[in-house]
Amino acid sequence: MSLLVTGSIALDSVETPHGSATDVLGGSAVYFSLAASLFAPVRMVGVVGEDFEPSLLDPLASRRIDVSGVEIRRGSRTFRWQGRYQGAMNDAETVDVQLNVLAERGATVPPAFMDSRCVFLANTHPALQLGFAQTLSKAELIVCDTMNLWIENEREALLRTLRAVHGLVLNEGEARLLTGKSNLVGAGREILTLGPRFAVIKKGEHGSLLVSHDDLFVAPAYPTERTIDPTGCGDTFAGAMMGYLAANRSYDRMALRRAMLHGSVTASFVIESFSIDALTRVTPEDVARRLRELRDIIRCD
Amino acid sequence: MSLLVTGSIALDSVETPHGSATDVLGGSAVYFSLAASLFAPVRMVGVVGEDFEPSLLDPLASRRIDVSGVEIRRGSRTFRWQGRYQGAMNDAETVDVQLNVLAERGATVPPAFMDSRCVFLANTHPALQLGFAQTLSKAELIVCDTMNLWIENEREALLRTLRAVHGLVLNEGEARLLTGKSNLVGAGREILTLGPRFAVIKKGEHGSLLVSHDDLFVAPAYPTERTIDPTGCGDTFAGAMMGYLAANRSYDRMALRRAMLHGSVTASFVIESFSIDALTRVTPEDVARRLRELRDIIRCD
Repeated sequence: MSLLVTGSIALDSVETPHGSATDVLGGSAVYFSLAASLFAPVRMVGVVGEDFEPSLLDPLASRRIDVSGVEIRRGSRTFRWQGRYQGAMNDAETVDVQLNVLAERGATVPPAFMDSRCVFLANTHPALQLGFAQTLSKAELIVCDTMNLWIENEREALLRTLRAVHGLVLNEGEARLLTGKSNLVGAGREILTLGPRFAVIKKGEHGSLLVSHDDLFVAPAYPTERTIDPTGCGDTFAGAMMGYLAANRSYDRMALRRAMLHGSVTASFVIESFSIDALTRVTPEDVARRLRELRDIIRCD
Repeated sequence: MSLLVTGSIALDSVETPHGSATDVLGGSAVYFSLAASLFAPVRMVGVVGEDFEPSLLDPLASRRIDVSGVEIRRGSRTFRWQGRYQGAMNDAETVDVQLNVLAERGATVPPAFMDSRCVFLANTHPALQLGFAQTLSKAELIVCDTMNLWIENEREALLRTLRAVHGLVLNEGEARLLTGKSNLVGAGREILTLGPRFAVIKKGEHGSLLVSHDDLFVAPAYPTERTIDPTGCGDTFAGAMMGYLAANRSYDRMALRRAMLHGSVTASFVIESFSIDALTRVTPEDVARRLRELRDIIRCD
C-alpha cells in the first residue's frame, strides 16, 4: 500500500562520546523512508539544494523508495544540522542549524503520488503540513510529527493541522509542552481532544506510549547496550511504525500496538552506528529476530 | 515465608503541585512494609526517637506487620525529611533532612527475627547493611537498596555490601553513578560483576529493568493519570516485589518478572495520594485488578 512521507533531507554533522561524523546523509524523511521500506514501498517528498550530491540517495533508491519526489533546487543550499550528544544521549544539543532550502517554499507532491493512502508528515512548519494533508485527499491515514518551535511559536497553525490528521507522533517533552500536562497519559488524552484519533508519545530509551480513544499501550524500547548515535531514532521509529501499518492496511488497536513494536526494534539498529549506516544494512529478518527477543523481554505469564 | 525489612521510619513533610502534608508517617521501612504485607507477613526493624507517637504505627500493626523490631529510643529524635516535587514529579528536591536517630547506632534485630528467610535492606549506610546481612545468616534471599550519598562517599563499604547480597534495587541515576555506564542494560550487567545475582533498576514513571545472569526484563509502570505525591514509590515497588517473592518462595526469572509487575502496580496506588494514605486502604483485590489491566496494556500478540 502506498506510503508517502514529506520531511527534511539533511547533511548532518554529529558528535557523540563515541566519535563524530561530518556532512553525512540525514533528515527526517531519510530515516523514515529507510525504516518504512523494510515493510512497504515508500514515496519520498522533499527538497535539497544544488550542493547535494545526488548519489547520496543511492542507498534509498535501491530499497523500494521512490525518490522522484525529491527536488534538487538550483540556487539553494541543503538543510544542515550540527548536533552533539552527551551522557545518556537521550537529548541532542543543537550546535548549529542552517535551514537553507527549508526556509524557502515547500516541496511539491508529484502527480503520480497524489493517490497515496498512507501519509506521514514529518516535522516542518504546521502550515506546510496542513497543505500536504489537504492536497493528499485520497489518504486514509495521515500522521504527523511536530516540535517545540511550532508548539511555542505557531500554536494556532499547529492546532489547525492537528484537526486535519488522524495521528500525532511526538516526544514526551513536546507532548508536555503542547498540552501543559506533565503526566503523559493525561497529555495523550488531551491530544485526543485536539483532533487526532491517536497519539504516540516517544520516550527515547524508555520506549513509547499509545493513547487512543479505545486503547492505552506501553511499548518498551529494545534494550540495546550500544548507543553510538541516536540521531534519526525517532524518525526511524515512526517510519517502521507507518511502514508496518501501510503494509497491513489495518489501523485498529492491535495493529497499532504491533506497529509500535516494529518501530522500537527498527530504531534500536539505528542508534548502534553513525548516520544511516545500520539502516542501510538491516534486513527484515534482523527486525524479526529482535522482535522475537523484545516480545520475550516484556513477556510475563 | 518470613520477610524482614530494615530501613528508616520517618516524619515526612512534603510539598507537591497538588498540596502539602506535614509530619506524616514515612520512611523506607514503612512504605516497604505496607506494600509487602499485601502479599506476605512482614517483620520490621528500625529506630525512632522519643518524639514518635507510637499510635502512628497502628495502620501497620493491623496489617500483619510485626513492629516489635521498632525501637523507640529515649533521648533521641525521629528522622525527619522535608521534600518538594515540581513539574513531572520524577525527582524529589530535598528541602531539609534531620538525620537525628539515624546518625546514631543502628537498629537491633530481635532474636525472634533471626530465622528470617527473605531480607530487604533499605537504604542506609552500607556498613550497617552489611552488619544486618551477616547477622541474618538464615536468609536465602537478601536484597538491598542504596543511594548517591553512599555511592559517592562510601564506595568501598558499599562494594563490600554488594558482595554479601543477592540482589540490588536502585534507581537509574544511582545505577549510572555506581557503574559509570549511561546505558542502563550495560549498568545492570556491570552490577552483576560486583556481586549481586540480579539488579532491578527503577525508572520512575518509565517502569523498571531487570538484569540478571539469565534474564533481561522490561517492566512498565502502571500508567496512572493522577500523580499526587510520589514519596515512597520506590520503597513500595521494592516492598511489593519482595512480598510477592517471599509469599511464593521462588526466585527464578519468571518469579522475578511477576514480582516486578506486582511492584509496578502497588506503587501506582501510592502516588495517587499523600503519604501512606492509599497504601493503608489498598487491598489484594485492587492490586489484582490493576495487574490484569497492566498485563493488557503491555500485551502484543
